[in-house]
Amino acid sequence: MSESLVDEPPDTADLGTEPWVLREATLDLAYLAQTESLFALSNGFLGLRGNLDEGEPSGVTGTYLAGFFEHHPLPYPEGGYGYPEAGQQLVDVTDGKIVRLLVDDEPFDVRTGRLERHERVLDLRAGTLTRDVVWVSPGGRRVGITATRLVSFARRTSAAVRYEVCALDGPVRVVVQSELVANDSPPDVESDDPRVAEALSSPLEPVTQEQRGHGATLVHRTRSSELVVACGADHQVEAPGDHAVESEVQQDLARTTVVAHLGSGEQLTLIKHLAYAWSDDASPASLRDVVAASLTSARSDGWQTLVAEQRAYLADFWRDADVEIDGDAPLQQAVRFCLFQVLQAGARAQGRPIGAKGLTGSGYNGHTFWDIEGFVLPVLAATRPEAAAAALRWRASTLDKARARAKTLRLAGAAFPWRTIDGSETSAYWPAGTAAFHIDADIAYAFERYRYVTGDEGLERDCGLEVLVETARLWMAVGHHDRHGGWHVDGVTGPDEYTAVIDDNVFTNLMAARALEATCAACDRHPELAAGLGVSADERDAWARAAQTVHVPFDDELGVHAQCEDFTRFAEWDFDADEKYPLMLHAPYFELYRKQVVKQADLVLAMHWLPERFDDAQVARNLDYYERRTVRDSSLSAGSQAVVCARAGHMELAHQYLHEAALVDLRDLQDNVGHGLHLASLGSVWVALVEGLGGVWPHADVLRLAPALPPGIDRLAFRMLWRGSRLCVEVTHEAVEVSVLGGDAVELDLDGERVRVDPGTPAVRPVRPRAPLLPTPQQPPGREPRVVG
Amino acid sequence: MSESLVDEPPDTADLGTEPWVLREATLDLAYLAQTESLFALSNGFLGLRGNLDEGEPSGVTGTYLAGFFEHHPLPYPEGGYGYPEAGQQLVDVTDGKIVRLLVDDEPFDVRTGRLERHERVLDLRAGTLTRDVVWVSPGGRRVGITATRLVSFARRTSAAVRYEVCALDGPVRVVVQSELVANDSPPDVESDDPRVAEALSSPLEPVTQEQRGHGATLVHRTRSSELVVACGADHQVEAPGDHAVESEVQQDLARTTVVAHLGSGEQLTLIKHLAYAWSDDASPASLRDVVAASLTSARSDGWQTLVAEQRAYLADFWRDADVEIDGDAPLQQAVRFCLFQVLQAGARAQGRPIGAKGLTGSGYNGHTFWDIEGFVLPVLAATRPEAAAAALRWRASTLDKARARAKTLRLAGAAFPWRTIDGSETSAYWPAGTAAFHIDADIAYAFERYRYVTGDEGLERDCGLEVLVETARLWMAVGHHDRHGGWHVDGVTGPDEYTAVIDDNVFTNLMAARALEATCAACDRHPELAAGLGVSADERDAWARAAQTVHVPFDDELGVHAQCEDFTRFAEWDFDADEKYPLMLHAPYFELYRKQVVKQADLVLAMHWLPERFDDAQVARNLDYYERRTVRDSSLSAGSQAVVCARAGHMELAHQYLHEAALVDLRDLQDNVGHGLHLASLGSVWVALVEGLGGVWPHADVLRLAPALPPGIDRLAFRMLWRGSRLCVEVTHEAVEVSVLGGDAVELDLDGERVRVDPGTPAVRPVRPRAPLLPTPQQPPGREPRVVG
Repeated sequence: MSESLVDEPPDTADLGTEPWVLREATLDLAYLAQTESLFALSNGFLGLRGNLDEGEPSGVTGTYLAGFFEHHPLPYPEGGYGYPEAGQQLVDVTDGKIVRLLVDDEPFDVRTGRLERHERVLDLRAGTLTRDVVWVSPGGRRVGITATRLVSFARRTSAAVRYEVCALDGPVRVVVQSELVANDSPPDVESDDPRVAEALSSPLEPVTQEQRGHGATLVHRTRSSELVVACGADHQVEAPGDHAVESEVQQDLARTTVVAHLGSGEQLTLIKHLAYAWSDDASPASLRDVVAASLTSARSDGWQTLVAEQRAYLADFWRDADVEIDGDAPLQQAVRFCLFQVLQAGARAQGRPIGAKGLTGSGYNGHTFWDIEGFVLPVLAATRPEAAAAALRWRASTLDKARARAKTLRLAGAAFPWRTIDGSETSAYWPAGTAAFHIDADIAYAFERYRYVTGDEGLERDCGLEVLVETARLWMAVGHHDRHGGWHVDGVTGPDEYTAVIDDNVFTNLMAARALEATCAACDRHPELAAGLGVSADERDAWARAAQTVHVPFDDELGVHAQCEDFTRFAEWDFDADEKYPLMLHAPYFELYRKQVVKQADLVLAMHWLPERFDDAQVARNLDYYERRTVRDSSLSAGSQAVVCARAGHMELAHQYLHEAALVDLRDLQDNVGHGLHLASLGSVWVALVEGLGGVWPHADVLRLAPALPPGIDRLAFRMLWRGSRLCVEVTHEAVEVSVLGGDAVELDLDGERVRVDPGTPAVRPVRPRAPLLPTPQQPPGREPRVVG
Repeated sequence: MSESLVDEPPDTADLGTEPWVLREATLDLAYLAQTESLFALSNGFLGLRGNLDEGEPSGVTGTYLAGFFEHHPLPYPEGGYGYPEAGQQLVDVTDGKIVRLLVDDEPFDVRTGRLERHERVLDLRAGTLTRDVVWVSPGGRRVGITATRLVSFARRTSAAVRYEVCALDGPVRVVVQSELVANDSPPDVESDDPRVAEALSSPLEPVTQEQRGHGATLVHRTRSSELVVACGADHQVEAPGDHAVESEVQQDLARTTVVAHLGSGEQLTLIKHLAYAWSDDASPASLRDVVAASLTSARSDGWQTLVAEQRAYLADFWRDADVEIDGDAPLQQAVRFCLFQVLQAGARAQGRPIGAKGLTGSGYNGHTFWDIEGFVLPVLAATRPEAAAAALRWRASTLDKARARAKTLRLAGAAFPWRTIDGSETSAYWPAGTAAFHIDADIAYAFERYRYVTGDEGLERDCGLEVLVETARLWMAVGHHDRHGGWHVDGVTGPDEYTAVIDDNVFTNLMAARALEATCAACDRHPELAAGLGVSADERDAWARAAQTVHVPFDDELGVHAQCEDFTRFAEWDFDADEKYPLMLHAPYFELYRKQVVKQADLVLAMHWLPERFDDAQVARNLDYYERRTVRDSSLSAGSQAVVCARAGHMELAHQYLHEAALVDLRDLQDNVGHGLHLASLGSVWVALVEGLGGVWPHADVLRLAPALPPGIDRLAFRMLWRGSRLCVEVTHEAVEVSVLGGDAVELDLDGERVRVDPGTPAVRPVRPRAPLLPTPQQPPGREPRVVG
């Protein structure tokens, strides 16, 4: 990438550009909330923000369990039929991260004394966050502290901290207090409604407490959602000479205290094992016992085993998923960070939703959106298919709630929620929530992609077919045929939230048609199951007819698709160089909705996901048209713009979008990473690399590849799973080499040529540069992709 | 009207069908809130609900001053740019109605003892509410009570009560307590937000109190809006023999107590004078003095003077405004009630807004909407033009707020609020609020109609031109030309709130075009004033071009106008006989918006207000099409449907709609009259009679008439003011007679013939029956007009 395109580095923490680690060399408290999100550890079930061990200072304190939420009121100044009555907020549960240290009675606090060294390292191969500190207390005592934290991928309920204190100059008396603390942090919510704050303040009601060995377990229950959570800790202590260990427990606090006298060079080591369990139906006693079992097991296996398991789990993951990029160090680091975070969000969610922020923060209330099916599951399907399957099973498990919602809305089938934790709709602004029915198609598409990439038809049998059938029924209730037979979907909102409640959104219509076709095909594959779901030949035919007759607005004069009916006739947005972004904070919906301004890829996303529906000339013209009108006020956009730009041959622009998507969180481009990472943007980076540069087709009968690189990347190598085989695709400007690293031979469409690749015998072909049909498209002034160092 | 069309009488208070009075012969507490609204007295500045004198029992206690409001929070679960932050609620101010009675220490309460007689009469010529009671106390004392109440049309700040107690059998000791009470009633608000209730509970903070003669004055201030109100009372007592009168005052209470011993047949008479004043800038002391002056003046002139003034004022009004209907007694009573209520709402508002409920209740928070300009001012312009002018001047006085709102919305000109008390937008659901920009055109149209009917050009010079210019500027910012020159208004909401945020609503587009044309013409009439407002020739030409090129959706296949772009292609509503109404309480906006279901006259309202835009065949076809799809879930509909049905020759259907509009409140057809009357529906009755049956054209160069009657009405006579002349139009099935009762001769277009009518020489012409082009249009099942006895 040419230097002239690189913006000034944004005002963010400097985490370096090493390929396998994020390294914060010195602590800057201004970026504490940011680094808490970036250093968050999670296995998809349990998430710990990267808070300092001693608890303070902190940006946002957070310990999250996937799916564990509390209700809160949704106050409407003007209510309406079908508006959700209760909101849901991911709860910051009992904090087990806390390890406080006193040095000769002075509490260790980075804001006091002198911090000679403070380095934090997130290691993407080890799966650990390590903190290395040299601190001189106000009283002049110098100690070294090394804390290593992990949330175990191998053990779903487990996390652990190894906390070492070393007396660096002369003897000191150290006291280490390891705690579990409930209800201690203010909720990270945006509402100014006092009822919301009240509902979410101290959300955990004590149920039981147990002290046990060198630790304790606290069991709590949420007031309204009535979910029970158990959190336990146990400790192993190594210290020279005499030392004392004591544990105590209260309703909202458990504390294990170690007192030791360290001579110069001596060290105290505390291993803190943590375990969490929650349920909406299991008894408090059973959860307490799950926690006890987890703790005993972890303690008896020991820290080294946990560390080794973690590294082994990640070695497996990187074997199947690693991406290598030569020539662009920031992007190399970022793509691995992205993959790591996608894994952290989904690895062990198992029956619980994946939030749009993963478990790295409680932004968006911890809700899951179409982001996950749209931008995260494609990555997991090709790298950790069991995690993708689990996420899809979770969606399917909410079918009854989606059916009930459809009924409330006077529709048929299942209306999946715009935003939710437990499967109930909680969107409080229907034009950008309930009206975005494309989520039903996005979910159907995710089931299809999973089946296509993995070859697994079991999921479809188990639950996918039922989901498809119910979404097809929804479409038939939402859409209708006009008097000439054309099938329309009116009054919905597509991905572009700046153009809402509109007719015949191309993305929605094509996705609905595809979902209907896919449902027909699935019913044909499983006729008995379909019959069991009440699908008649007439119903199936109606689906097929709707899909065949779907109306797709096209402006013949301009030769471009209209994002929705009449879109290309709308007034143009007056792009002023002084405009402030995101526009939604500076302009009313009224202005945004009626003008040709696009928040995020919409028609472009249709081209990304449904390439078979657009010929090359249409792609070129549409891209040119919509690029000029897209302000990218959403992190769900740059990745797809990268893909379509790459397909259209605008390789450098694709590279720029890729950079922006990859660095949204690492450089805090949206100035809100403190509330959690943008999982969809993280996922879209892999998609942009594999589908954009790799030219992998999102769906086809065989795996279809046609790679090309932008000038700024010398070599790209990516790995992926394909129907049980492990592939590596290595691309340079000259050649592409496809290897089967494991599993059976794979049939490929390699740049139009049908190729069979056997294990151990890579296929090598020249790379054909992509020739754009039109000049590089322009963006609105100031909305060019952000390229940061 | 044929008997078979008459529905069962609804469950409402029986107020008879006498032509000049509403008479409630017996008290039914089940209808207390209803009768409080129907018996409310007001002069447009001060409104007293028809609460019982003794204060209890009550449905909704209410004393209102036009424009006197308090702020309250508007809680949004998902806020948005430009959303109003504060709501406004008409405040129930200090209650001066209260006169309590104790008979031998037993409080008079209609729920205790025995009520031998309880009649209430609202006299539309006297302008009084009279209550006639014979009560036997639990202790067996029998007394007669006659209370007469008036809110003076002649004296804006004054109201009075004459309260008489008579000992009917044997001597009794009576104590009469006449009170002023502040902050005593719970606010009549719908929000369940505790902050709203808190803001509106005890909204009046005491400022000063003064005891003075036989009475007192309380001065209060609202906490947030900082409006100051003064309420005072003075008393005149007539009683036989010894009696005592004492007055006392506290912060929220003033009490004057009369103790008298009445022998059998003896009577105590208390005249209670009330005065109110409020201001947003005058000092408490000056308001206190305004009240004192009003009280002294009323007391010295005496009760009989007040009564005589009231009757004289109304005699003037009825001379100019009366409507006589032979053959339909309920309609005869109703139309006079409607006119009386329109007068009560507007007579003395003078610089304050007229609320959609007048001052009869605090429904809709006491806000004013387009209802007033659209349906009430046409009546006032032709019957009490100074009141119409005052209402328009109030609108003009809010121009700065409307300009600021336009700026917030990133528009030009002035964006008048959807709902307000002080001129600031307070609508909390923008798709059915802010997006309804047609309010700007409705206001412009009201200025035009006023000028057309009254011939007064002074208002235009004073403020009308500026309003027109600023609304024209708004339209130029809201609308735009497409690449072929057609002018479009996208993303707005028309009158039909079941089809919102749509493109090219015919009503909005045509009304905007008409406003632009009117503004051009007004600028041509006042070139110097226009120049002073910065109107250039280019700007004027742009307005003219937009009006000339306005896009009007028309479905060529069906031969009907599309209410908005693509409307006739939308899915049809599945009208089920079991459907519950209003639909908005039983279906989500999503379903309503995308289907061909119409809440209220929209395209039909365009035909009503802009008849020159539609030929007879279009009117017939459009009416047929939209009648089948209009559910009339709004009281703003039946009157306009009556007009267009009558014009199209469907005289019986017009009569039915007229009935429904006329009886919305008197028969509580919408089951919410307890929160106040529906001013727009009341106004639309006159409009339906005059424009529908009378065939009066809403605007043209000369007064255009073409009357016809439905079978159920034998004779219709209506009076109106026309450019300073007083007209009477008398219509039978055979002939129409137009007389000029006062003022100059009038030029008429009488059924196509140009006629000059001189005072004293009526013009008589035969009535030409109207022949419908199509069969009587059908309504959705169960949504035929409600015809009640």
